[in-house]
Amino acid sequence: MSPRVVLPAGVSSTSFERALAGFQRVVGPAYVLRDPAQLLPYRKIMIPAPEDEHEPSAAVLASSLSEVQGVLAVCNRYKIPIWPISTGRNLGFGSAAPATRGQVILDLKRMDRILEIDPVLCTALVEPGVTYQQLHDHLKDRSIDLWLDFPGDGPLVGPVGNTLERGTGRTAYADHFAHACGMEVVLADGRVLRTGMGGLPNGTCWQSFRYGYGPYLDGLFTQSSFGIVTKLGLWLMPAPASYRTLLVQYGRDRDLAAAVETIRPLRLRGVLANPCALTNATHMLTAVTRRAELFQGTGPVPDDLVLDVGRQHGIAAWNATFSLYGTPEQIAPNLDLVTRAFQSSGGRVSEYRDGSQANELSLSAFSLLDWVGGGGLTWLATVSPARGTDAAQQRDLARGILARYGLDYLARATVHGRDLHHLVAMVFDRRDLTAMQQARDCFRELVAAFTDNGYGVYRAGIDAMDDVARSYGDTRREVNRALKRALDPNGILAPGKSGIHVGGA
Amino acid sequence: MSPRVVLPAGVSSTSFERALAGFQRVVGPAYVLRDPAQLLPYRKIMIPAPEDEHEPSAAVLASSLSEVQGVLAVCNRYKIPIWPISTGRNLGFGSAAPATRGQVILDLKRMDRILEIDPVLCTALVEPGVTYQQLHDHLKDRSIDLWLDFPGDGPLVGPVGNTLERGTGRTAYADHFAHACGMEVVLADGRVLRTGMGGLPNGTCWQSFRYGYGPYLDGLFTQSSFGIVTKLGLWLMPAPASYRTLLVQYGRDRDLAAAVETIRPLRLRGVLANPCALTNATHMLTAVTRRAELFQGTGPVPDDLVLDVGRQHGIAAWNATFSLYGTPEQIAPNLDLVTRAFQSSGGRVSEYRDGSQANELSLSAFSLLDWVGGGGLTWLATVSPARGTDAAQQRDLARGILARYGLDYLARATVHGRDLHHLVAMVFDRRDLTAMQQARDCFRELVAAFTDNGYGVYRAGIDAMDDVARSYGDTRREVNRALKRALDPNGILAPGKSGIHVGGA
Repeated sequence: MSPRVVLPAGVSSTSFERALAGFQRVVGPAYVLRDPAQLLPYRKIMIPAPEDEHEPSAAVLASSLSEVQGVLAVCNRYKIPIWPISTGRNLGFGSAAPATRGQVILDLKRMDRILEIDPVLCTALVEPGVTYQQLHDHLKDRSIDLWLDFPGDGPLVGPVGNTLERGTGRTAYADHFAHACGMEVVLADGRVLRTGMGGLPNGTCWQSFRYGYGPYLDGLFTQSSFGIVTKLGLWLMPAPASYRTLLVQYGRDRDLAAAVETIRPLRLRGVLANPCALTNATHMLTAVTRRAELFQGTGPVPDDLVLDVGRQHGIAAWNATFSLYGTPEQIAPNLDLVTRAFQSSGGRVSEYRDGSQANELSLSAFSLLDWVGGGGLTWLATVSPARGTDAAQQRDLARGILARYGLDYLARATVHGRDLHHLVAMVFDRRDLTAMQQARDCFRELVAAFTDNGYGVYRAGIDAMDDVARSYGDTRREVNRALKRALDPNGILAPGKSGIHVGGA
Repeated sequence: MSPRVVLPAGVSSTSFERALAGFQRVVGPAYVLRDPAQLLPYRKIMIPAPEDEHEPSAAVLASSLSEVQGVLAVCNRYKIPIWPISTGRNLGFGSAAPATRGQVILDLKRMDRILEIDPVLCTALVEPGVTYQQLHDHLKDRSIDLWLDFPGDGPLVGPVGNTLERGTGRTAYADHFAHACGMEVVLADGRVLRTGMGGLPNGTCWQSFRYGYGPYLDGLFTQSSFGIVTKLGLWLMPAPASYRTLLVQYGRDRDLAAAVETIRPLRLRGVLANPCALTNATHMLTAVTRRAELFQGTGPVPDDLVLDVGRQHGIAAWNATFSLYGTPEQIAPNLDLVTRAFQSSGGRVSEYRDGSQANELSLSAFSLLDWVGGGGLTWLATVSPARGTDAAQQRDLARGILARYGLDYLARATVHGRDLHHLVAMVFDRRDLTAMQQARDCFRELVAAFTDNGYGVYRAGIDAMDDVARSYGDTRREVNRALKRALDPNGILAPGKSGIHVGGA
């Protein structure tokens, strides 16, 4: 049986074969993958969408800037859409798969050099294939006392991909894009743009000053398809003299509002140096048990049961964690301030152990997947003002809709500053087509309801990009399209990414 | 005598008259200025360039979003270049004048509404004509305990213009663009783009979350001509419980490197919450005397004399100031850390009074202008890594070149974080054509020398934009042009701004 060929939209079989031959000349035959077995890692997704809607046509593994340029030349010639990935995770948002069927994956994992670490300025310059684990080991091996800030799926993913998706972590450097400095971007036509101070010949501050001169462009290359980032500068955090991680527990679900009202002023006054994450009981329970061991009925696990079992495991209705960093003398007055503030809002304060706030990598976030089993995961990632009323409204909105689809509310509400990120994990059995369809319908309803209530989605999976982009209005979409046409007139880079399509592609 | 008409390049007298009539229909005849006397405030510049190179052809004062749209429609019809200003200061960078001769000034000072203050989330939404003084008074009148961060020329200027130029201040919110959140932008064709979360109908977090969904665009509208910002969201700083401002003095010029090496780690560890500015003795002396009272010779005032006179006024070779904010209990351990660090680097630590780090407006920065008199001022604003060696090299480079032109080195080196901003005031007698030409030549030589040494200019006056833009390389310029064509195909918005020109304009 000859392998089924998934052609890119509008590309003939002849053109496609020529393009593949072109790719082979650029990267070598071993690095152009087209057999179904080889493409399996690029097809496998967790989101509630059929794999064939996001099936890639091939994968090309480039190992250098000039190979990326060579690949792009072939794509422009044959109008081949290409979907760049770095480490290819992006779990629950589409993994390595493209937004639309038939794109060629441009896998950059072979570009995995740590190009520079500056222990004085506390910066790094890395390629897209570098993982957090690799960077962590690199620093440790050289006894360089700088901390990284990891996203939830830490060791598997890399700083370039996560930063470009505007991912977040748990330390004072949680806003990854805000702590990135300087990009090397290959444009669709192969030209190489260095942003910020990177355009200066012999420049000294590419990784120390973000803005450069004239329009500040870096934001353009996040959550976008306007270029391929082949190098990224990172700011690393000097290891603090010491730290203490704390847990604040609230016994009742309705305490969420009071918790947020307590956290926001502490955060805005800088008493809390890192975002404070409030995790609900069901989400916490995924670390210690599975849904089936708790409850065999249909619908979400009843609240009373969750709270009862939670109590046995030291889990409360809402569980806030944050860290205080510094010398013991610096920590003491802040510990006093936070303890008093949380206690007077009804929280129980205790010491806690959470390495994710202190440069430790872990896979513990994956316990979420075991809650129901079957490998289905998608994130609802919305934002609201960091106000108690908004936190409560978002919770009620999500929980109500999830319940109607029989799904549990697994939530984390993180007060970053003036904004609260409400991250809800929808887990389901992806082997069960009905469950998948339910999850899909539920997700669309959630996006629509959150939008109607003025809460936007800030990051979305490849199956939801069009819906989310639409929620931000026509002018925004037109501007995105105009910029896309200016930078990628043939529309070869990641069509559909963030809901941006050009022409017929 | 009929008034001399300065036509925009490539625009006929007939077209121009029709355009003026069109503007009058949009904003009313009283708000279209064309008489030389009326245009005087828009012509007056401090930079070392002849006024006629930057002479405006007219000024239009719009009072609303729809008037801005109406003005743009006229500009598109008659291909009239328009130079938007907010409060019209930008002293030492070109004041209100356009980058190229013959542009029409679009003065937005009548759009001066403070649209919203949220004392809970600590945000504001303002129009371009709002001044820092106005916002400061507004908060004070309502007893809202939020601080502003002011640029050097505080009361006269406004947060929209300063933020869009990526200006900086002195508190923990010194990076103004990093503390802006959400823009309303009128595009060249009159469409209205709301960035970040602003595109959501009924959105709740336009001023609380910066990034929105998809490419993050706000940076595009800073130091640029890609749109006219008519509303800007600002983050305001909760007033701290208390604060202490400190002065650290270094007696010898060569102590600069040690000072920077001391400040950087304190800043990166968050011990210093605000940037630490190191001001040199000559710069400090402008507050207490004038050059002519000190020295009547040619060339820069001799170093020994500067240090001697400085000593009489309590001024050292380098004078660092910063503040510690928080409760007395929070301040105490930080005070201990900074005192020990600075003392061991040879600095003398004392209490200081500097309201600019504590929500006080002042015009004291203008004492610079009295140093020589004659109203000439231009800033060399360069950036380097925050390393002692780079700080010393920048100082030597600037001082050497300035001395050859007989100019004093009036410098402030501010450690923002990993970056050091080196701001040099070139003051000269603008009434003396030779002095002006000298200043002009000197400035070009400075830009070239700094570029050659890998130190970029991060903000430039209207007379230097092309030179500086060129220093960042061809690809960067081509990308800027491509974006410009995409967003402003007729090139009507501020041609020449940040060195971006389209077509023949």
